[in-house]
Amino acid sequence: MEPFLKHPLGPKMKERAKLDDLVISTRIRLARNLKDTVFSPVLSKESQHQLCQRVETSLGGLQGFEYLHMGTYDVVTRQALVEKHLISPTIAGKEESAVLLSEDETISVLINEEDHLRIQTLLPGYQVEEAFELAKRVDVLCGESLPYAYDEQLGYLTTCPSNIGTGLRASVMLHLPGLTLTGRITPILQELRKLGYTIRGRYGEGSDAAGRLFQLSNQRTLGSHESQLLTDFMEVTEQVIQAERQAREELLARNQDELEDQFYRSYGILRYAKLLSSTEAIERLSDLHLASDLGILSDWSPPQFHELIVKLQSGFLQKHFGKTLSTKERDRERATLVRRTLDHGLV
Amino acid sequence: MEPFLKHPLGPKMKERAKLDDLVISTRIRLARNLKDTVFSPVLSKESQHQLCQRVETSLGGLQGFEYLHMGTYDVVTRQALVEKHLISPTIAGKEESAVLLSEDETISVLINEEDHLRIQTLLPGYQVEEAFELAKRVDVLCGESLPYAYDEQLGYLTTCPSNIGTGLRASVMLHLPGLTLTGRITPILQELRKLGYTIRGRYGEGSDAAGRLFQLSNQRTLGSHESQLLTDFMEVTEQVIQAERQAREELLARNQDELEDQFYRSYGILRYAKLLSSTEAIERLSDLHLASDLGILSDWSPPQFHELIVKLQSGFLQKHFGKTLSTKERDRERATLVRRTLDHGLV
Repeated sequence: MEPFLKHPLGPKMKERAKLDDLVISTRIRLARNLKDTVFSPVLSKESQHQLCQRVETSLGGLQGFEYLHMGTYDVVTRQALVEKHLISPTIAGKEESAVLLSEDETISVLINEEDHLRIQTLLPGYQVEEAFELAKRVDVLCGESLPYAYDEQLGYLTTCPSNIGTGLRASVMLHLPGLTLTGRITPILQELRKLGYTIRGRYGEGSDAAGRLFQLSNQRTLGSHESQLLTDFMEVTEQVIQAERQAREELLARNQDELEDQFYRSYGILRYAKLLSSTEAIERLSDLHLASDLGILSDWSPPQFHELIVKLQSGFLQKHFGKTLSTKERDRERATLVRRTLDHGLV
Repeated sequence: MEPFLKHPLGPKMKERAKLDDLVISTRIRLARNLKDTVFSPVLSKESQHQLCQRVETSLGGLQGFEYLHMGTYDVVTRQALVEKHLISPTIAGKEESAVLLSEDETISVLINEEDHLRIQTLLPGYQVEEAFELAKRVDVLCGESLPYAYDEQLGYLTTCPSNIGTGLRASVMLHLPGLTLTGRITPILQELRKLGYTIRGRYGEGSDAAGRLFQLSNQRTLGSHESQLLTDFMEVTEQVIQAERQAREELLARNQDELEDQFYRSYGILRYAKLLSSTEAIERLSDLHLASDLGILSDWSPPQFHELIVKLQSGFLQKHFGKTLSTKERDRERATLVRRTLDHGLV
């Protein structure tokens, strides 16, 4: 477990990638179930345990993977893995669940999620096809030793009908400060929802879009072939990216002075505040990131945005400081960490 | 004129004085009129001119004084003098008016204000009696060569009935961040008004109490002897000072972390903002001043508060940069000036 908590980003996530000024990361998820086992919602704790063991036996020996059983770890450790997007909140909340994690942190096979298996791949930047190919390779590997519940007409069978068919969900985490600051994000969100896409705050359902980070994913999984589904998804994503670029250009043309003022103020606050909530920290770091993208803070590189976002989440923060912290203590330590990070920055 | 615009504070105002962590400055004003001249509101422009000349002839030769005729100076110059409290807005708005200013900037004799003469003295810190004594000396001097309108029963006659009697107004400029931040200022303001005192924002009637600066002065001038009036005024002032000290202690005891955060944020913003309104600048400088008073920024001396407040006003700012500036340009230059001032400050 330890290596996965040492750094906020896995080795692969630190690499520069296509469009990574706007697309923080790409994820592919395949929902799979075993035909010889009752589906998760009605699975007894005993059977959940057996399922974990069975997957461990089949796949646990894979080179370059580690098998982590959730029951072994405390709440904060699990939370930190959620914050890295290596596991889901559902898995984190279940004692009898596990994840098979690749050492480079690009592949997670979640066991006893809403479905028996959820194969997830995570890559930096905009890499939908690459993440899909990787997921398919893992899918084939899993399918060789585990009997999937598959229906010729319907496709892969899943617990929730919304996942039936391909079981495929593609998502991209987008940094959309331009659309947020111009207020254009609202109609775009509505439009995307009408088109059958889900777009929500960084940490999934119900959470705010802190730091102007949005997770866009497809809702339909049935009926389409995987390739059609991905093509549609990429088309929509690229439209959003295009709109974001336009919004940024307009912002710059219209309010350069005010933007500059806002960015420098965010820098000043990050550099001196003694208490910082996670939401505020991300939002102000988003300002710096945007300023750097727009060339406003031209002779200065902001701290690695994605890395800091993860580092400043409460689970990861508590792991970093090696102790449980109250909300206020977290706000204080978060501020300290940010100050230290910026110390050698802009003067 | 030039020497008066060179520095935001006169030589005397820079000296440390009693209670100057709370009382920025003390002013005494005596309203006087000449018995052989119709009162100002109905005085023709020609007679206003004659009055200026008459005072110049009588007093213009006084050593250590300079006679400045308003008609000679542009709007920005006059505004800068108002910002230094060396002249009043009324004088600044009149072509046929003048001021006799002492070189050390403690004495202003305003000609053609609401009354023919207004003798004003201005000292740093809490120096009610000292400022009064100085004003009385000037009063005697003026009275020797100019025939005052005086009634045995009523006392000095003035244009506005509210000034009749002693013609004396005492005021102190108070920095009350403790009372402002605890919200206790509101009932205190009401109470003071009931007791016959005026308390208002720094630049007089109608203006907001920017930067938690309040000008407290007596409203009654009639009936009391000068000494009784001053004793009452000082008693009330000292009660407000006491309340402010208490409020500060409570703030510190209750919310030290939040206070510290607020102070450092203000510092960060002042140090990096690219646009600063006068109100925001003063409010954030007030934070630094308070933090220093409370010992929170212990190893650091904030920039001279009073000096900066004057320097950042729009008239003085335009004088400093030697040109007319739009609101936005002023906000930009103000921010630049603050950044430069703090550059060698806290690290």
